[in-house]
Amino acid sequence: MTAKRDFPVHKARRYLEPGPVVLVTSRWRDKANVMALGWHTVMEFSPSLVGCVISVGNHSFHMIRKSGECVINLPTATLIDAVVGVGNCSGAEVDKFERFGLTPEDASDVKAPLIKECHASFECRLHDDSLIDKYNFFIFEIVRAHAAPTPKHPETIHYTGGGVFVLAGDVVDKRASFRPEMLSLD
Amino acid sequence: MTAKRDFPVHKARRYLEPGPVVLVTSRWRDKANVMALGWHTVMEFSPSLVGCVISVGNHSFHMIRKSGECVINLPTATLIDAVVGVGNCSGAEVDKFERFGLTPEDASDVKAPLIKECHASFECRLHDDSLIDKYNFFIFEIVRAHAAPTPKHPETIHYTGGGVFVLAGDVVDKRASFRPEMLSLD
Repeated sequence: MTAKRDFPVHKARRYLEPGPVVLVTSRWRDKANVMALGWHTVMEFSPSLVGCVISVGNHSFHMIRKSGECVINLPTATLIDAVVGVGNCSGAEVDKFERFGLTPEDASDVKAPLIKECHASFECRLHDDSLIDKYNFFIFEIVRAHAAPTPKHPETIHYTGGGVFVLAGDVVDKRASFRPEMLSLD
Repeated sequence: MTAKRDFPVHKARRYLEPGPVVLVTSRWRDKANVMALGWHTVMEFSPSLVGCVISVGNHSFHMIRKSGECVINLPTATLIDAVVGVGNCSGAEVDKFERFGLTPEDASDVKAPLIKECHASFECRLHDDSLIDKYNFFIFEIVRAHAAPTPKHPETIHYTGGGVFVLAGDVVDKRASFRPEMLSLD
């Protein structure tokens, strides 16, 4: 796989808006963890905001809340078994990086690790905790973004529930039908 | 296309969690409107909650806020030109249903219309408006869900920005690798 490069944080929507499962890493004191997450949405370009539902039952919930940081990593189809594995065990019992062959790498701005095998990684700081108690809803600011330059449209993994995933398929370019101002932020 | 049937509201995640572009309809007084939206996330199974970012610049923003209702409709690949069209003009100037060949149908529990040509439709009531002023973030409760029974995995449309879409592709069943409790809500 191609090494990741930095790119502008407001462009994270390119990878997150299509709705893929992501692997969210965290670090608290001397422990790192990773969880699979499908309930997220882009919320703003600048600052680059992402909202994520992280259930209080997850080991990662407290690690992320206490540290105020995480990394959102984008896995592609070759990692689907790791994604399923990560989502079906707890970091309270298992070193998931080791068990599922995921390599933690140092991030630039946060202590949570990047995952080397993922196509893109978004370093995040907790921006707004006001809906955590009521909805487990964390609003993060992406403070640094890294992505592999190729492939341009990675084969991301999308969860439908029931143990069934749909992979990203055909790419359709409709740019010519857009008004210029609708493309100004991309 | 197959007619839609009612199904349990907590199963809406099956269609929304993969992250498709949706067409959100609204009605305020005697006017109906429709907008394209890609910034949404499932937030809870029961009540069935969905969070959506609807920019204050959209004509639909005020219609939805004032009425406290909308319908989230799921378009598939054959509707991609209608989706692009809807996203590139304003309901303040155009009757988008007529212009893009979308047929409004009466909903059961809300005044906003269902879109006949869409694979699924979720009738929503505004559940929490506390983040609207700060983030344009509406939390809706899905109060009634309708979906066509086939195809089981519709070819949904996912936006990457830049006028480029990715369509839902191959289906991968990993049910056998899931712990039973991870499937209990599906």
